[in-house]
Amino acid sequence: MTALYLEDFEAGQTFGSGEVAVTEDEIIRFATQFDPQPFHLDPEAAKVTFFGGLAASGWQTAALTMKLLVGGEMLPANGIIGAGFESLNWPRPVRPGDTLHVVSEILEVRSSKSRPTQGMIKVRSHTLNQKDEVVQDSVGNLVVVARPVRTSR
Amino acid sequence: MTALYLEDFEAGQTFGSGEVAVTEDEIIRFATQFDPQPFHLDPEAAKVTFFGGLAASGWQTAALTMKLLVGGEMLPANGIIGAGFESLNWPRPVRPGDTLHVVSEILEVRSSKSRPTQGMIKVRSHTLNQKDEVVQDSVGNLVVVARPVRTSR
Repeated sequence: MTALYLEDFEAGQTFGSGEVAVTEDEIIRFATQFDPQPFHLDPEAAKVTFFGGLAASGWQTAALTMKLLVGGEMLPANGIIGAGFESLNWPRPVRPGDTLHVVSEILEVRSSKSRPTQGMIKVRSHTLNQKDEVVQDSVGNLVVVARPVRTSR
Repeated sequence: MTALYLEDFEAGQTFGSGEVAVTEDEIIRFATQFDPQPFHLDPEAAKVTFFGGLAASGWQTAALTMKLLVGGEMLPANGIIGAGFESLNWPRPVRPGDTLHVVSEILEVRSSKSRPTQGMIKVRSHTLNQKDEVVQDSVGNLVVVARPVRTSR
């Protein structure tokens, strides 16, 4: 895996990831810690809620997407450093037994005028389940370093 | 704590939360599971990175914000169900030893034309550290149920 610098990115490139499986136990464990609501905690109680059954917290989907990105193909030399998101949506819930992967597309590459050693890339990432249905859709900006200039002497 | 229905929300209302402390161990544990990058994993290695020291994953900040919201004052009767975010930013990192709380402001209340039993509220949430510095700024939309109509007979 080659570390990527700002100059290596261009709009239209796509990058993939490995896969991660999501179990009922993990959904309940994450929710217990961070999002303790019935539809994330209890398969029985979840049946009569908005979700109609146990669903992962959106923040677990987001955290698992990050795990897939860090282990995936789109790896800036300075790491994956999110400056912020312009949108983050969960069009459908993640269910126990789902297997997720991520596909990212570079939308824009901008060098920084004030800091010539870095820039930003705008990235759309789709997190997909095993049926290739989108469970998370995000557009975010990452800080990416420029390729170091080698000085001769 | 009274459960809140769509009719109980109006633009301009603000809601608070309790507090949560963030330890170095928790930062490293979360990062190991979801965001294994040097600046989130290793206080020594983090010194020479963009963050200049150990920093929590933004997704941990987001998950802890959710925990504070679920235990906080802004509790729709159907739970806190995020339809999606229009923006999500981390203006400064969360550091070991920080204590966080959340302040949310209702920006907009919309009833649903197609589903009269529910609507959406647009909420800006600021997650603040112990110095009242913003560590997360989000604008999101929540699905909220309308107050049930009691039928007479």
